[in-house]
Amino acid sequence: MTQPAAMAELWRGDLLESAHSGHAVICDANGEIRSAWGNPQAVIYPRSSCKMLQALPLVESGAAEGLSDQQLALACASHQGAPIHVDRVSAWLKDLGLSDDDLRCGPEVSRDKDLKLAMIRAHEAPCQVHNNCSGKHAGFLTLNRHLGGSAEYVDPDHPVQKAVRAAFEEVTDEPSPTFGIDGCSAPNFATTVSGLARAMAAFAAAGSGSGARDTAQARLTRAMIAHPELVAGEGRACTELMRATGGKAALKTGAEGVFVGILPEQGLGIALKITDGATRASEAAISALLVRLGVLDPEDPAVRKRMNAPVLNRAGKPVGLVKAADELLTA
Amino acid sequence: MTQPAAMAELWRGDLLESAHSGHAVICDANGEIRSAWGNPQAVIYPRSSCKMLQALPLVESGAAEGLSDQQLALACASHQGAPIHVDRVSAWLKDLGLSDDDLRCGPEVSRDKDLKLAMIRAHEAPCQVHNNCSGKHAGFLTLNRHLGGSAEYVDPDHPVQKAVRAAFEEVTDEPSPTFGIDGCSAPNFATTVSGLARAMAAFAAAGSGSGARDTAQARLTRAMIAHPELVAGEGRACTELMRATGGKAALKTGAEGVFVGILPEQGLGIALKITDGATRASEAAISALLVRLGVLDPEDPAVRKRMNAPVLNRAGKPVGLVKAADELLTA
Repeated sequence: MTQPAAMAELWRGDLLESAHSGHAVICDANGEIRSAWGNPQAVIYPRSSCKMLQALPLVESGAAEGLSDQQLALACASHQGAPIHVDRVSAWLKDLGLSDDDLRCGPEVSRDKDLKLAMIRAHEAPCQVHNNCSGKHAGFLTLNRHLGGSAEYVDPDHPVQKAVRAAFEEVTDEPSPTFGIDGCSAPNFATTVSGLARAMAAFAAAGSGSGARDTAQARLTRAMIAHPELVAGEGRACTELMRATGGKAALKTGAEGVFVGILPEQGLGIALKITDGATRASEAAISALLVRLGVLDPEDPAVRKRMNAPVLNRAGKPVGLVKAADELLTA
Repeated sequence: MTQPAAMAELWRGDLLESAHSGHAVICDANGEIRSAWGNPQAVIYPRSSCKMLQALPLVESGAAEGLSDQQLALACASHQGAPIHVDRVSAWLKDLGLSDDDLRCGPEVSRDKDLKLAMIRAHEAPCQVHNNCSGKHAGFLTLNRHLGGSAEYVDPDHPVQKAVRAAFEEVTDEPSPTFGIDGCSAPNFATTVSGLARAMAAFAAAGSGSGARDTAQARLTRAMIAHPELVAGEGRACTELMRATGGKAALKTGAEGVFVGILPEQGLGIALKITDGATRASEAAISALLVRLGVLDPEDPAVRKRMNAPVLNRAGKPVGLVKAADELLTA
């Protein structure tokens, strides 16, 4: 089996202190692999990187009629629980006649610094709506209203999750060999890195108007690109890198070192997984692949800070560098 | 060159989601390698795992006369900035006629949950004394008082750091090929994994009373073993695992996936480095090696939670497992 390939390095002084390897695939609209590093057939959990796949049944079914692009961006988001995210998801739940208690994602401390500090000072406990997946779950609840399923919409046998699995397998064009339970309690279906890249290429190529799936894919991609601040939040990789592409890519991170990209103009999809699960490496690697494909400028500060990121000590002085592996740019 | 060996795995459902590899060496009192995984000659930064080496000149020089075992444990510590740590280091600085401003480690938010929340609520900024390395730096300042050096005691050419380098190279029994600047601004000298294990074995074998170095090594090991709560803090790996050995080992973690162990009864030293720098893997691997050597019970809760650690989702349900690689226990 093909070994993982170099993805990112941490240098301190003149010594390579730590190194990350993994698998990456760039796929075209025909589902063909254009470039690959490591093992394209490695089976992975996409984790949150596949939220646009999990949102497909919501849109295809017609359940999303009346939802705004902002709501669809939140359905695809791992947001940081800032007021712009939390307030919108809360309003969405209210529109459904539901509340925080109807979510099944579990509570999570807001990752928005100001809100987090304010809640600590007010002795307020985090709610489920602060969970980075709460937009996805509001989407699940909207689909569930349409399907008339039980309240336990994260059960793998629930109609919502069965619809997600069917869409997931069709768009990755592979049967999913297994699933795990994600941090937000929803099933997360496994696929290969190439299957995930193929799915992203299908999103990239959508927009011909040929049927509900094509329309749904194009609409979700458009919503993500239109609202990068809702897909993650200020300071975060998805948001900053999407902005830096100037609308040329929809990007999504996933826990344990996953990152995907949808490039509509080029009809290309990207998927990568860092074997050890490190986010610093997945962010460096996706930045490098987007530079390689010409949609990011390596000198853009948002890009530099991820693929040539200074490591600062606690006195604020640079003492090292996190960089993407050269092979991602040149091989 | 020998490739890194399997060190730890993250399973979710029935799929291996992420994997960590690295290098590990168990060395005896003669400096001979007893067991090794990966490449014993891999050059690494020990980071905070070598604080007992950095404290040697403090004790050998006589500068530590009058210091308590608690202070020596703090000199070897990466403490979590709890009141038991911060108050003692502050008192130590006061004894020296110095203050927080004389430290050069930089400020760091306390990792003690209650103190951290209290400081946020009181709008208090973190001080240098909260830095996990402040005990080491109080030791540097004590040595500096003895040596009469300038205030900039973290400069690589400062007498304090020259003394550290000399001791480091003598005890690892290797010239250090390079150094990097650590998170606390002090130089961190590189060595091989086997050099670091050899140094730990030298500490383990000390206590014959044959000279200042032997006496210093034995005293530092004893201080760490006597005060596990000062070496790290409640809930942290060094503290909980040292307690679980019942005094049979001094243990110390380092950033970027390093862990070392000193086993006085067996005269053995352990050093390991996770290639990707992951702490969850270094904690799993050191636990497994200590089980292998008979000083930890795999069923002890402090051990289980590191070498067979359930992964919980945000609803608190187990959805996976972080485990040490089987080869560490059996190969």
